[in-house]
Amino acid sequence: MFFNVVEPTIAQSLLAERLPRILPSESIPLEQALDRLCSETITAPHSLPFFRRSTMDGYAVRAVDTHGASESLPTLLTVRGEVLMGQPTAIKLSVGETAVIHTGGELPPDADAVVRVEDTRQIMLDEVEVNQSVSSGENVIQVGEDIEKGQTVLEAGHQLRPQDLGGLAALGIQQLRVVRKPSVAIISTGDELVPYDQIPRPGQVRDINSLTLASMVTKVGAEPIAKGIIPDDLDLLSAVIGDSVEEADIVVISAGSSVSVRDATLKAMQRIPGCDVLFHGVAVKPGKPTVGAIANGRPVIGLPGNPVSAMNLFALLVIPTIKHLMGAKSVEKATVSASLARNVASAPGREDYISVRLESRDGEIWAEPVFGKSNLIYTLIHADGTIVIPADKSGLTRGEFVSVSLF
Amino acid sequence: MFFNVVEPTIAQSLLAERLPRILPSESIPLEQALDRLCSETITAPHSLPFFRRSTMDGYAVRAVDTHGASESLPTLLTVRGEVLMGQPTAIKLSVGETAVIHTGGELPPDADAVVRVEDTRQIMLDEVEVNQSVSSGENVIQVGEDIEKGQTVLEAGHQLRPQDLGGLAALGIQQLRVVRKPSVAIISTGDELVPYDQIPRPGQVRDINSLTLASMVTKVGAEPIAKGIIPDDLDLLSAVIGDSVEEADIVVISAGSSVSVRDATLKAMQRIPGCDVLFHGVAVKPGKPTVGAIANGRPVIGLPGNPVSAMNLFALLVIPTIKHLMGAKSVEKATVSASLARNVASAPGREDYISVRLESRDGEIWAEPVFGKSNLIYTLIHADGTIVIPADKSGLTRGEFVSVSLF
Repeated sequence: MFFNVVEPTIAQSLLAERLPRILPSESIPLEQALDRLCSETITAPHSLPFFRRSTMDGYAVRAVDTHGASESLPTLLTVRGEVLMGQPTAIKLSVGETAVIHTGGELPPDADAVVRVEDTRQIMLDEVEVNQSVSSGENVIQVGEDIEKGQTVLEAGHQLRPQDLGGLAALGIQQLRVVRKPSVAIISTGDELVPYDQIPRPGQVRDINSLTLASMVTKVGAEPIAKGIIPDDLDLLSAVIGDSVEEADIVVISAGSSVSVRDATLKAMQRIPGCDVLFHGVAVKPGKPTVGAIANGRPVIGLPGNPVSAMNLFALLVIPTIKHLMGAKSVEKATVSASLARNVASAPGREDYISVRLESRDGEIWAEPVFGKSNLIYTLIHADGTIVIPADKSGLTRGEFVSVSLF
Repeated sequence: MFFNVVEPTIAQSLLAERLPRILPSESIPLEQALDRLCSETITAPHSLPFFRRSTMDGYAVRAVDTHGASESLPTLLTVRGEVLMGQPTAIKLSVGETAVIHTGGELPPDADAVVRVEDTRQIMLDEVEVNQSVSSGENVIQVGEDIEKGQTVLEAGHQLRPQDLGGLAALGIQQLRVVRKPSVAIISTGDELVPYDQIPRPGQVRDINSLTLASMVTKVGAEPIAKGIIPDDLDLLSAVIGDSVEEADIVVISAGSSVSVRDATLKAMQRIPGCDVLFHGVAVKPGKPTVGAIANGRPVIGLPGNPVSAMNLFALLVIPTIKHLMGAKSVEKATVSASLARNVASAPGREDYISVRLESRDGEIWAEPVFGKSNLIYTLIHADGTIVIPADKSGLTRGEFVSVSLF
């Protein structure tokens, strides 16, 4: 078998093509729905507002009664009463009559506009001077002006923000269907690894990928399943991957990145019945030795063992795969614009991910590359985000504008 | 008493000046620390790595033994064994000797460099040709190269990201002190409001600010306390605010935005013994009628009742106040650069917050303003983010570059 090294977007699509577009949904109460994704399009069960409301404090009027009114020639109206907040409006207005109204109050049936209190002068308890003409509908929210009955409120795949919950609450929607959280099994392999709560002996190191990758899973709104540390034993690793593709929606293995161990992950994957390896190598730095496969209909992704490469490829491959399974709509990514603080070289033919620290100097934002061997986790800790040098470039020069993706 | 309308940054500082810089801390396990803020500076208890590690698969060597080696004139070395992963290295290297080593493996005591396997050719089981010279330290991570014992790992006020948890795990730090989550009491007032799980009668509307503001509190990593809906009753409102400043770190009231009700919030605040009103009006649109005070040493912020204004001022005043209490370091804000899709007018003298929808056309991103009366929650739902027109500008023109803050 021969595998080409592929670009990260190709690697993504090779996995996505083989996966269902969306996981099953579940019904949850509105107050638990923040950050979850709608699994179906929601339409408005009724119009909002369902009665005409004033946008101002002032006087509900028949607009025609105010025509011609001005500072120099005010119109006199008779005040028939006050619209009480939260009460049905029983006030009937005849020609030349008005009612006091507050912001959010319901317009009396015969009124079609509101004159702002600033444009009036009270003459007597039941008489007011209007010195500004209003047109029909002025300072009024019409029925359905916020949203009309039957209109789309939110589309399937939309991630729920605070205002979305507010819009659903305004319509009395207390329960909704959201996409089930994808589960991601996380396996660390390597004879040198010990759990981080143990004291490593000479030659051993603490496993940190289990924790960093689980945190990334949590942040994107999915459910990590910790499978722990598996020694470099082909049978054992294959058995754990086999169990994991039954249990989880996605399986991620971070392996010691030595050539032999890398092959072990691939070999262990290939032992799973029906496993289909889709790519073996991704054209990025750091993180090239990454393997992607489908087994039991589930994506199985073998990441390099070094923590920086593992996080980089997790962000590039696993997070888009999680979002694909959640049916997430693609959204623009917010970045920080900065000037690159020094020249950075890059080998053409692969995307280069450079960690940068943001610094403010003379009112300008600079992106200072944080260099270091790619297995040093502290290069990521001392950085605020990353920049990408595209595969067709051989570097960037000092002073160039770059878009920094914050961690 | 006379209150000036203040700019939002002034309003922020007026509150911040009167507040402690940081809340008390609590100790939590590392695996629960994602997104929490360090309450104290953490230093490295030991160096990382604590033994010299290879960054490559290859051969551990004494660099001096490889000097002069090249493709045409390779150097022959005797292989003394293999460094096993996770094992202490007992291999002693004499002049002209080497050991097989894997990425992450511990360097034998006499070795000071690693030759990549690609730069070697195995001749016999115990003999290898090196065709590339290496210098001392090449392909080796030195002790403390990731972080040195005693160095600062993370500063107080740093919000913990996945890689930060990884860096702490690598050092065996299993428990750490983080800032206690600030609690935010949320009060909705208005005779027209009913809880969103009730069916409003004519003239009534469902309360949505309780839910949108609580969601914003949750998203920023604080703890909402729901105080429910209080009718427009001065005694009652004052009593609830009084209780809330005992119970919560911040108190937020969203009031019906009519003039009378607005005054009620202010009056209710002023009845709290020792309450000090700091500003009454913020120079932004939407959201001007906002009141800020300190009572019982806690910030009390009265927001407009309309949901769009309430969310805007919550983002401008309450979130920075929460971050202040968490001792959060200020970080650059990521935005999306876009071209403004149409002219937008703005009254000078106040900041104008405009909701926009992002649209991709001809490979360019456009920000399309979502207009609508400021009390329509669906203007926020149909938008992806906001742009700000500064107080000294009278508008923006079509095609201008704008920075969109995503919701």
